[in-house]
Amino acid sequence: MSDNQHEAAPIKGVLEPIRWNEGTLELLDQRLLPEQTVDLNLNTVQEVWDAIRNLAVRGAPAIGIAAAFGVVLGVQRFPGPPTALADEALRHAAHLATSRPTAVNLFWALDRMKERAKALASSVGSTHEAVLALLAEAKQIQAEDIETNRRIGEHALNLFKDGMGVLTHCNAGGLATSKYGTALAPFYLALEQGIALKVYADETRPVLQGARLTAFELQQAGVDVTLITDNMAAHVMSKGWVQAVIVGTDRVAANGDVANKIGTYGVAVLAKAHNIPFYVACPMSTIDLSTPTGESIPIEERHADEVTLGFGKRTAPEGVKVYNPAFDITPSELVTAIITEKGIVTAPYEAGLRKLFEQ
Amino acid sequence: MSDNQHEAAPIKGVLEPIRWNEGTLELLDQRLLPEQTVDLNLNTVQEVWDAIRNLAVRGAPAIGIAAAFGVVLGVQRFPGPPTALADEALRHAAHLATSRPTAVNLFWALDRMKERAKALASSVGSTHEAVLALLAEAKQIQAEDIETNRRIGEHALNLFKDGMGVLTHCNAGGLATSKYGTALAPFYLALEQGIALKVYADETRPVLQGARLTAFELQQAGVDVTLITDNMAAHVMSKGWVQAVIVGTDRVAANGDVANKIGTYGVAVLAKAHNIPFYVACPMSTIDLSTPTGESIPIEERHADEVTLGFGKRTAPEGVKVYNPAFDITPSELVTAIITEKGIVTAPYEAGLRKLFEQ
Repeated sequence: MSDNQHEAAPIKGVLEPIRWNEGTLELLDQRLLPEQTVDLNLNTVQEVWDAIRNLAVRGAPAIGIAAAFGVVLGVQRFPGPPTALADEALRHAAHLATSRPTAVNLFWALDRMKERAKALASSVGSTHEAVLALLAEAKQIQAEDIETNRRIGEHALNLFKDGMGVLTHCNAGGLATSKYGTALAPFYLALEQGIALKVYADETRPVLQGARLTAFELQQAGVDVTLITDNMAAHVMSKGWVQAVIVGTDRVAANGDVANKIGTYGVAVLAKAHNIPFYVACPMSTIDLSTPTGESIPIEERHADEVTLGFGKRTAPEGVKVYNPAFDITPSELVTAIITEKGIVTAPYEAGLRKLFEQ
Repeated sequence: MSDNQHEAAPIKGVLEPIRWNEGTLELLDQRLLPEQTVDLNLNTVQEVWDAIRNLAVRGAPAIGIAAAFGVVLGVQRFPGPPTALADEALRHAAHLATSRPTAVNLFWALDRMKERAKALASSVGSTHEAVLALLAEAKQIQAEDIETNRRIGEHALNLFKDGMGVLTHCNAGGLATSKYGTALAPFYLALEQGIALKVYADETRPVLQGARLTAFELQQAGVDVTLITDNMAAHVMSKGWVQAVIVGTDRVAANGDVANKIGTYGVAVLAKAHNIPFYVACPMSTIDLSTPTGESIPIEERHADEVTLGFGKRTAPEGVKVYNPAFDITPSELVTAIITEKGIVTAPYEAGLRKLFEQ
C-alpha cells in the first residue's frame, strides 16, 4: 500500500464509503472490492479528481459528495483573506467538474458549493470561518443524501413483509451513495428493525456490480444475501423464492419508463411472467420530466473487452463481434411502483410523477 | 506444448473436433478454447480416458465417439489371435466406461463396440481384420452422429428464413458432437446453402460455454455471430433483432418439458413475451419417455467457485452464499417445437413424441 492508503477498519453494519476525518477525506477504494477493503486518504483536490476519474468512487450521489469535500480540501489551508477564498473555491470546483464530465450529480454538488462560497465571500469575517461554512455545506449535502436514502428505504420497506425473498440487479446501494443506497436501503432498514428478508443479488454482467458490490456491502452489513448469475433469476422466480424485485435507476422518464443497468428490462419481463411486483427506487433528482419516454434516452454502448476480457482472462475468441449496451429501458407497463423520498408512485405515472414534484 | 500436442491446423468451415488419423486419435483440446486451438494426439487407451476425465473432450455424443476410438487404440497393435482380441477390447471398454460415470452416450457407444468385438471373435480370420472391423464400427458411430445432426439441421433450417436473427444459449454445437452439433447445425447448413442468418450467442454464465465454445466454433466456420451477455437477451429481443430462439437439451421428458443449461428457461419466458418462437433441437436419444415431466428431472447444483472465481479472479466476496444450479426446466407450454433427426414435433408433445418413436 502507498502512503495515502490504509487497510479499512472492519465494517460493522451499513457501509459508509465517504468519510470526512479531521481534514482528510477517506474513501473506500471501490476498484479493489471485493478482494480488498482499502481506504484512500485524500488531502488534495487533485487526489479527489483522480479518485473520481479512476472510479475509486462511483455512483452519481457518491461522486457529488466526494467532489464537495474536494472543494473543502482545496481551501482548508488557504492563506489569503475570506474575500479571496471564494475565487479559490470556484477554481477548484471548475477543475473537479472535469473529472467525470457526464455526471449530473457532480455538477449539482459543485454548483451548491460554488453558490455557498460566493455568498460567504461578503458575509464572513475570517477565512477560518469561511472554510468551516464550506465544510458544513459539504456535510449537509452528505446528510441530505443519507436522509433521502433513508426515506426511500422506509417507503420501500412498507411494501415488504417479514420472510419475503427480494431480488435486485446491479448496485444501487450504499457504495453508490454515502449510506443505505436506494434499492438496497430497505434491506438495511429491515435489518435495523428485525424484519427478515432474503435477498437474491444478480451478479450483473459484464461489470459484475452485483457480485462485486451488492453482495459485498449486504454481506458486510449482515443482510441475508445469495448471489446468482443473471440467467438464474428466472429459475429462482419459478421456484417461488422471490416475492418482489427492487432496482435502482439512472433516469426515469416523464411517462415512468426506466433506464437502468443492462439486464433490468429482462428481470422486469420475468417478474411480470411470474406475477412478482417490480419496484424502482430512486431519489427525486433521478426523475427527468423533460424526457418524455424511454425512447429518447440514449443507450451507451461500451467496449467489447468488458464482455470478452472482463476479468483478466480471455473468455471469448479474439475478434468476435460483441454487442455491449450498458443500459436498457424498462417500459412503465412493467413497473409496479416507483419509490422516492417523497413517497410511492404507481400508474398512471405521467400524472403521479408530476404531482410528486408539486408537493 | 508436450509431445502429444500440436498446434491445430487453421480450421476452414465446420469444426470437426474428433479425427482418426492413421492410427492416432486427434482431439481438439476444449479446455484451452478460445485462447488456443491445440490438438491432442492420443495413441493409448489411457490417454483417451484422461482426455474424457479431464474434459479435453466434452458433450455427450463427442465423449461416446472418442471412447469408441479409444477401444480401437487399445487393440490396434494386439499381438494375439482374433479370438483373444474380443477380451482385450472388452477390458479396454470397461476401463473407458469409468472415465465419466454418468455419461449415457459413453456407455451406449462402448456397448456397441463390445457387441461388435464379441461378434468378431468368432467370425474373422485375422487379428488385423478384426481391428479394421472395430475401426469401421467406431467410424460408423461417428458417421451416424454426423448424419443425425445434419438431419436435425435440415429440419431446423426449414423453420428459418434468409435474413433472420436467431438467438442460442450455451453450446449445442459441433464441439459437443463430431460435427454440426444439434442447435447449431442449421447455422452451418445455412452457410453451406448461402442463407444469411444472424446469430446471437448468450455467453452462458457461469461456465461461459456460449462465449468460449459457441462463439468460437461459429466464428471459425464463418457464421455471422454476435456475442452478448445473458442479461442482454431481453434487450436484443425488444429491438426486434431476434426472430427465433434455438437451444439444445440434456433431456426431454415425455410431456415435452425440456432440461437444459441454466438460463434456458429465462430465455424461453422472454421469447414468449416477445412473440418469438422457441425451438429445441436434439437427437431422438435425448428424449426420455420414461421421465413423465420435467419435475422428475433432478437439478444438479454445482460449486460456488464457478460463480465467484469463474474468470480466474475473485469476482464476489469470500464466503458469500451462492446458488448455482447447472440446469433448469423449460415447461413444454413455452416450447414452440422440438426438432429431431426424424422430424419436427409440436404440441401436444406427449402424443407427438410417442409417434416419433413408433416411426
